[in-house]
Amino acid sequence: MAEGPKVVGDLIECGYRPRHLYAVEKWIESHPDTNVITVSEEELKKVSFLQHPQQVLAVFPIPNADMERPLHPQLYLALDGVQDPGNLGTIIRIADWFGISTIFCSPDTADAWNPKVVQATMGSIARVHIIITDLAKLMQETTLPIYGTLLNGESIYQKTLTEEGIIVMGNEGNGISAPIRRLIQHRLLIPPFHKGAESLNVAIATAITCSEFRRRGLFPRERFIF
Amino acid sequence: MAEGPKVVGDLIECGYRPRHLYAVEKWIESHPDTNVITVSEEELKKVSFLQHPQQVLAVFPIPNADMERPLHPQLYLALDGVQDPGNLGTIIRIADWFGISTIFCSPDTADAWNPKVVQATMGSIARVHIIITDLAKLMQETTLPIYGTLLNGESIYQKTLTEEGIIVMGNEGNGISAPIRRLIQHRLLIPPFHKGAESLNVAIATAITCSEFRRRGLFPRERFIF
Repeated sequence: MAEGPKVVGDLIECGYRPRHLYAVEKWIESHPDTNVITVSEEELKKVSFLQHPQQVLAVFPIPNADMERPLHPQLYLALDGVQDPGNLGTIIRIADWFGISTIFCSPDTADAWNPKVVQATMGSIARVHIIITDLAKLMQETTLPIYGTLLNGESIYQKTLTEEGIIVMGNEGNGISAPIRRLIQHRLLIPPFHKGAESLNVAIATAITCSEFRRRGLFPRERFIF
Repeated sequence: MAEGPKVVGDLIECGYRPRHLYAVEKWIESHPDTNVITVSEEELKKVSFLQHPQQVLAVFPIPNADMERPLHPQLYLALDGVQDPGNLGTIIRIADWFGISTIFCSPDTADAWNPKVVQATMGSIARVHIIITDLAKLMQETTLPIYGTLLNGESIYQKTLTEEGIIVMGNEGNGISAPIRRLIQHRLLIPPFHKGAESLNVAIATAITCSEFRRRGLFPRERFIF
């Protein structure tokens, strides 16, 4: 379920076909060709998960993203037990920003199609494939390098980072689980810059890690899109 | 008001003296020398802002951080109208991680001592000075370079970044306000890596920006703390 012109619009633009689409007059006026059920503001309020419903609400079938085998030589994220829907939504938005087209989620990661997650992605869920899978099996089968942020890692700023690979991010409280940790080939650490600081939120750590991988690709060749 | 062993503990450790301190037996046992009022779990639940109260709750006087004049040649953050308490708390936590000891907040930025912000900092508010001030005046008076992330900026990955300066981050919806925007000397952009992506959350953008400033200081000289 997706709400609001931005999120619903992004999904439709990316080829998602809504199974049900409800909107107030204002939205319908600017989308004259859409097959939609007109609702009043009050009716929308009744079914919305948002505190302030935003004109349109749509129900989509959950997409079935197939895993390419073998994996393409590109950058992937793998989430090992990320629990908070807000964090998961933010991570999907970060992946979209950095052109990471597929995220692998362990079965115990939060549900990416939970409406809270969908809204937190701000529409990015339309552009990022989510594949729920056994991460250990995936990591054992692939020939791509496997990176993870761990407390005993080496500074990400000084490690060699490849343009392709799987970046594993762990649970908010416990980090990467023991079975997955053993399969990490390259242990990365985002070093704190003073002694008091103890932790970074997992979405923040994901952003810094993705930024660091992508910036390497810019030098010496330039890979900007504009 | 701060809650939980981590946040209350960090504040006390940094020299903050609680005006009122309420805790359940379990917390008091491990803090025998603290002057505290014993409460039951039920009493704590009644006064707590948290869904799951965490053993201890303390009320501290709001600190009065003085602004050094002129500003020291170091890195500062300036927040121009950041509205969401969760974002503000996360930004304070990021500043702590990257050793940025002072954040300037415009008067219309969310209240840093709002309990939601305090909790979101995970204790970092104990180590970061918050100064609410007129950002335009501050920027006109200082000789430090002033950076801001703007849509028409140049890629942060390719700009020269100094080790000292003020990094301005703007409001979630509208970015940096027009009067402040005019005072930005160095316009930075975090470039998206594919065309669909439209925005980054302000806390995520702050993290990537701080990481980029700090990593520069590591090369060629090494400035790790460990």
